[in-house]
Amino acid sequence: MTLARLNNLTASLRTSNLDAVILNPGPTLTYLTGLRFHLMERPVVLFVAPGRDPVLVLPELELPKMDLFPYKVQAVAFGENPSEWGDAFRKAAQLLGLDGKRIGVEPRQLRLLEFGHVKTGAPEAEFPDASEVLSMLRLKKDKAEVDLMRRAVKIAQDALEATIPLIKMGMTERELSSELVMQLLKNGSDSEFPFAPIVSGGPNAANPHASPSERRLQAGDLLVVDWGAAYEGYISDLTRTFAVGEVDDECQKIHKIVQESNAAGRAAGGPGVPCADVDKAAREVIERSGYGKYFTHRTGHGIGMEGHEDPYMRGDNMQLLEPGMAYTVEPGIYLTGRNGVRIEDNVVITETGAECLSDMPREIRVVG
Amino acid sequence: MTLARLNNLTASLRTSNLDAVILNPGPTLTYLTGLRFHLMERPVVLFVAPGRDPVLVLPELELPKMDLFPYKVQAVAFGENPSEWGDAFRKAAQLLGLDGKRIGVEPRQLRLLEFGHVKTGAPEAEFPDASEVLSMLRLKKDKAEVDLMRRAVKIAQDALEATIPLIKMGMTERELSSELVMQLLKNGSDSEFPFAPIVSGGPNAANPHASPSERRLQAGDLLVVDWGAAYEGYISDLTRTFAVGEVDDECQKIHKIVQESNAAGRAAGGPGVPCADVDKAAREVIERSGYGKYFTHRTGHGIGMEGHEDPYMRGDNMQLLEPGMAYTVEPGIYLTGRNGVRIEDNVVITETGAECLSDMPREIRVVG
Repeated sequence: MTLARLNNLTASLRTSNLDAVILNPGPTLTYLTGLRFHLMERPVVLFVAPGRDPVLVLPELELPKMDLFPYKVQAVAFGENPSEWGDAFRKAAQLLGLDGKRIGVEPRQLRLLEFGHVKTGAPEAEFPDASEVLSMLRLKKDKAEVDLMRRAVKIAQDALEATIPLIKMGMTERELSSELVMQLLKNGSDSEFPFAPIVSGGPNAANPHASPSERRLQAGDLLVVDWGAAYEGYISDLTRTFAVGEVDDECQKIHKIVQESNAAGRAAGGPGVPCADVDKAAREVIERSGYGKYFTHRTGHGIGMEGHEDPYMRGDNMQLLEPGMAYTVEPGIYLTGRNGVRIEDNVVITETGAECLSDMPREIRVVG
Repeated sequence: MTLARLNNLTASLRTSNLDAVILNPGPTLTYLTGLRFHLMERPVVLFVAPGRDPVLVLPELELPKMDLFPYKVQAVAFGENPSEWGDAFRKAAQLLGLDGKRIGVEPRQLRLLEFGHVKTGAPEAEFPDASEVLSMLRLKKDKAEVDLMRRAVKIAQDALEATIPLIKMGMTERELSSELVMQLLKNGSDSEFPFAPIVSGGPNAANPHASPSERRLQAGDLLVVDWGAAYEGYISDLTRTFAVGEVDDECQKIHKIVQESNAAGRAAGGPGVPCADVDKAAREVIERSGYGKYFTHRTGHGIGMEGHEDPYMRGDNMQLLEPGMAYTVEPGIYLTGRNGVRIEDNVVITETGAECLSDMPREIRVVG
């Protein structure tokens, strides 16, 4: 399977006017090789060029992993002294004849650390942005990938269902987040989580990217839980919003609006539909209600091996959805200093429409 | 506290011939601000220049975090459409008058994503490597930082002690790793772990950077557990090696050698001692035993907010240890295809010597 993926990549390099791409540890490297390397102070870089065996520059202590490669890869190993590392990168570039050539990079993942070493190895090369070629590889999920995502959704949903009865008034956001993480593991999540859960109550819920704090849950809070599991490297990313005890009418109202917006967003997707239409469908519901300016982000992002990847559900994104594309639908309303709501599901495009992988109840539930 | 840290940074910029530094989400940004931002597809960058308020470029949806800053920071926010992002970076560079100036970067953390946007904003600037200036900031831990590390060590040790009775013959590495992660949380670790635990038995233990697999523990395995906790962003990083049932004489022997090597490495540190001497002390024990070529990595790395940071315990590193520096001592012997041992502790330099923060028994213990 990974060999087919590698062949797809080299085929698209040939049509993209790129002589090679370089990859550091991250989802694309794992997608192509099935292996995980640590992103650390020692630079690990895979060079892929059409018609040659890939070359991997890596620390000597990682050499045992070479046996795990699913196809032939030439290793160039370096020792612990950083002054030797330049030589290893020069050797890799020479093996593939890359100096003066066009070597594609993945700006979202590649650090100046690795980039600097590759430039030392191939000082005359150009380094065009290969994001599109690389993101295309992972954009359409096959059945096996969707099954892993389905499993990651189930693990996440089961974990939150197991956590809900444990939610108590006066509990801190951090305590609740720890409980949820334990339940994710108990229910079978990989221990490398896609992201740390967001657990935010009351005014903190008005911050879409809050970190769990020492604030205690209190009656009248809306409680946003944005969480996900990973299963064999594929992830889920869901959000539900609860009422802690009794909440006021406006909280009830904004929850209901967001629930309708989420439903409209989920229904809007399908093959041939522009991403923008998913955003518009969800946004219209909130705008009609008068809360448009409190929905401060796009409606969703692609999902697969990463929390955020192509395609993005933005009003200006005219990219057309195709079968196998997977993304979140996650409208929200954020009332600064008071409360917030978000409801998020994971959707995958089929031949005929959009299938929602998540089915946990979206109605407001009372906890605490 | 964070203001004092910011002032330290601007003072060292003045003496380093740098007009500014740029930081993306990561430990240095958290050290200077006390805040955590997500490392994602939206570029978040803090610009720090002496004599001016820092400028933070960030997505609009992160604006609620601005209230949490411990000192005045000017925000330049961008919307969801990536075509607007360049303008935000141009504005930030203009606010600080940085075009044509020397803007220091942190290659280990900064991605081409952020770097590309900053270059768009300041096309005539130079971007020297500021790693040394930035790593100096965090190199010597104050008492409060050491106390947090001490707590992270205690959480990790308590978590493993609670896990040991649950280790059973036939359990998979992944199952054991999940148990340990749950115990880390129960014992109070932050849910953003410093790294996913390494749990590797038998032949997998010969791979220093193994990922927990579906392999089941069996009698005769050495079992390497390399784990750590985080407490308020400060981490621990420890390793102990167990015997699963009865292990052969060579396993007993290499465990004993590594234990002696670890003790020699722990004893070697002190103010004014070169890092190289810590490496040599630990390495000599293993070399004398004839297993020198199976100790395939340096003896240790600095530790604090990151798993790997300065100072590095390498034979060629003549950097002198000073009070407040903290690092790991983690010699190992790796017999490819058979078994492996590593024993790792966390040490901090005091005015008079080296204090070991970890005290969990290092003798071989039988589990399963």
